[in-house]
Amino acid sequence: MSNTPKSDTKFGYELQAKDGLARRGEVTTAHGTFQTPAFMTVGTAGTVKGLTPDQLRTTGAEVVLGNTYHLMLRPTAELVDRHGGLHKFMNWPHPILTDSGGYQVMSLSGLRKITEEGVKFQSHIDGSKHNLTPERSMEIQHLLDSNITMVLDECTPYPATHEEAALSMRRSMRWAERCRKAFIDRDGYGLFGIVQGSTYEDLRKESTEALIDIGFEGYAVGGLAVGEGQKVMFEVLDHTMPHLPEDKPRYLMGVGKPADLVGAVARGIDMFDCVLPTRSGRNAQAFTRRGALNMRNKRHQDDHRPVDDQCKCACCTQFSRAYLRHLFVAKEMLGPILLTIHNLAYYQELMAGMRDAIAAGTFEAFQEEFHKQQDGGDIPALD
Amino acid sequence: MSNTPKSDTKFGYELQAKDGLARRGEVTTAHGTFQTPAFMTVGTAGTVKGLTPDQLRTTGAEVVLGNTYHLMLRPTAELVDRHGGLHKFMNWPHPILTDSGGYQVMSLSGLRKITEEGVKFQSHIDGSKHNLTPERSMEIQHLLDSNITMVLDECTPYPATHEEAALSMRRSMRWAERCRKAFIDRDGYGLFGIVQGSTYEDLRKESTEALIDIGFEGYAVGGLAVGEGQKVMFEVLDHTMPHLPEDKPRYLMGVGKPADLVGAVARGIDMFDCVLPTRSGRNAQAFTRRGALNMRNKRHQDDHRPVDDQCKCACCTQFSRAYLRHLFVAKEMLGPILLTIHNLAYYQELMAGMRDAIAAGTFEAFQEEFHKQQDGGDIPALD
Repeated sequence: MSNTPKSDTKFGYELQAKDGLARRGEVTTAHGTFQTPAFMTVGTAGTVKGLTPDQLRTTGAEVVLGNTYHLMLRPTAELVDRHGGLHKFMNWPHPILTDSGGYQVMSLSGLRKITEEGVKFQSHIDGSKHNLTPERSMEIQHLLDSNITMVLDECTPYPATHEEAALSMRRSMRWAERCRKAFIDRDGYGLFGIVQGSTYEDLRKESTEALIDIGFEGYAVGGLAVGEGQKVMFEVLDHTMPHLPEDKPRYLMGVGKPADLVGAVARGIDMFDCVLPTRSGRNAQAFTRRGALNMRNKRHQDDHRPVDDQCKCACCTQFSRAYLRHLFVAKEMLGPILLTIHNLAYYQELMAGMRDAIAAGTFEAFQEEFHKQQDGGDIPALD
Repeated sequence: MSNTPKSDTKFGYELQAKDGLARRGEVTTAHGTFQTPAFMTVGTAGTVKGLTPDQLRTTGAEVVLGNTYHLMLRPTAELVDRHGGLHKFMNWPHPILTDSGGYQVMSLSGLRKITEEGVKFQSHIDGSKHNLTPERSMEIQHLLDSNITMVLDECTPYPATHEEAALSMRRSMRWAERCRKAFIDRDGYGLFGIVQGSTYEDLRKESTEALIDIGFEGYAVGGLAVGEGQKVMFEVLDHTMPHLPEDKPRYLMGVGKPADLVGAVARGIDMFDCVLPTRSGRNAQAFTRRGALNMRNKRHQDDHRPVDDQCKCACCTQFSRAYLRHLFVAKEMLGPILLTIHNLAYYQELMAGMRDAIAAGTFEAFQEEFHKQQDGGDIPALD
């Protein structure tokens, strides 16, 4: 429980290599650095479900995402602050990013109402009433001691008309300005703006320019992975990324599947978060170099091979598919735990592979090999 | 997954020290040794719920108990055998004891019928019909590759008349003889007999003599911890233990609370198993040097101290009561995981403390200190 941040550590992004649009870099925070492109493991309520911080670290995780919505309701940001912040509370002395709470207010809470002031909503846990404004979101994330604070925005529903998307985006930009004013600057801590504008090129450009005008330590692309599909998502990145500054990290929120990560890195994204590896792991879905497996499937019952024979994780080096299948069929906690470890290790190794390829200038070959393996290609199917 | 037993390792018990009736010793198996008095962690269905073998090892666990009833139904003993045995299947290369399946057939299955031949029952999982005989129980435990096989017996219901207890015990003794004949001797593997006879001194003596006459590598006291209470349980031990041979390990099945363990060790017991630390841990009950705590209790919500301030486990050295309380209230998997680790570490440290005290000839003082701490005594209450 000791990782007192050095007060003289500046928050920053170092671009170390480029290969096409893909970027290899490093983000520095008061709680250490993380390498980009980075996959941030989702630790919703102050814990990555089922894993100790030690186990999480073995997957290669360098940065964890906490959800403001969940934490403000339970155990509350004030309680976490009394405990010395989220790093100490959950014993994760490494970098932490928190979202603003806005997205999950809209997807999880009841009786919500958005006004210019902010969002009023009822807790999905106990029905209690709350008011999340840009200023309150900044206060909560400060209390949590988050290294990377996200501005409060509205994730514009998809699909949206141009008018709806413009109204929503422009309010988010006004909120972004209020967030910048309310955010308390500290060395080693940063605030990220979030580009909105749905699928409209002109609105994305307007949003990006508005954010740059305010000035942030990083820029996120929001409002994607909400049903528009990979093709449209990549198109939005194609016309949004050129407007973002080179010297700041770029974060694609809530994405995604392995192929989404590879395609987004190719378009210049540096950071990701997604519940897919953890949630799928709890639900018996394994990600492997050669595609996904359902570990509950009966065909695994006498298969003594690991989930992924090239994987070096604590699951694949110690346990067989037959054992994993038994654990899931018997509803044993260890099944979700082991498969969460494996899926996270797979994601982290995918990111490490991309980082190495970008540094070596071989990212195009990496992408080809990735797709060939995922599609089966000329390699004998693992399963 | 490699711990090929040395074929020349003999199964054995070495008595190293005595202090009153309490014994300090070591059991040797084909998969290594364990120190006694020993607490065996229950790993019902091929996993200690929520823990990896590495985490389990950090609690001080040296030997795991597997349940024949659960494993024969799912994934089946034959599947485990095809996988190279339970050690390899669950990646626990250390000693394993399996029960006979008899106790859980009676407590969990449906439509069971006991005859001289054995027990016919229906699976609680899928209603399938099974026939568990002494011979089949030996076969299953052999397929599981268990280091210590338990004879099939009937755990006489409590209370029982003298006549009921005698009939039940004598059938168990006939089954014990069939088990001895069916058991395949291998170096480093042993078969334990189980003393029955309910609370009747003459029947316990008769049962003990019958078992010694057959001859086993160890002797268990069964039919206790079934509602008779600690006082009666200790009385049964008081009149049973003198009949057991000094050169074999003695195992009190299904016991118990910390105070039960201390009192039974004082009466000459060497081995225990119980679901209490694991099941309680999953249900937010913590065992500490100063009694039990319910970690869901609101009074822990801002308590930054560890569960037990003298404990060196992975839970107490890294996390606070406030965090544990949050995890349980939020129904996060990590709560049960961490508290299982703590409870097991507490049990193992209790056993280690008893072993040290017996070796040092200070077991009486140890008992006094144990009861003083558990009762609060003159130590400021931890909670």
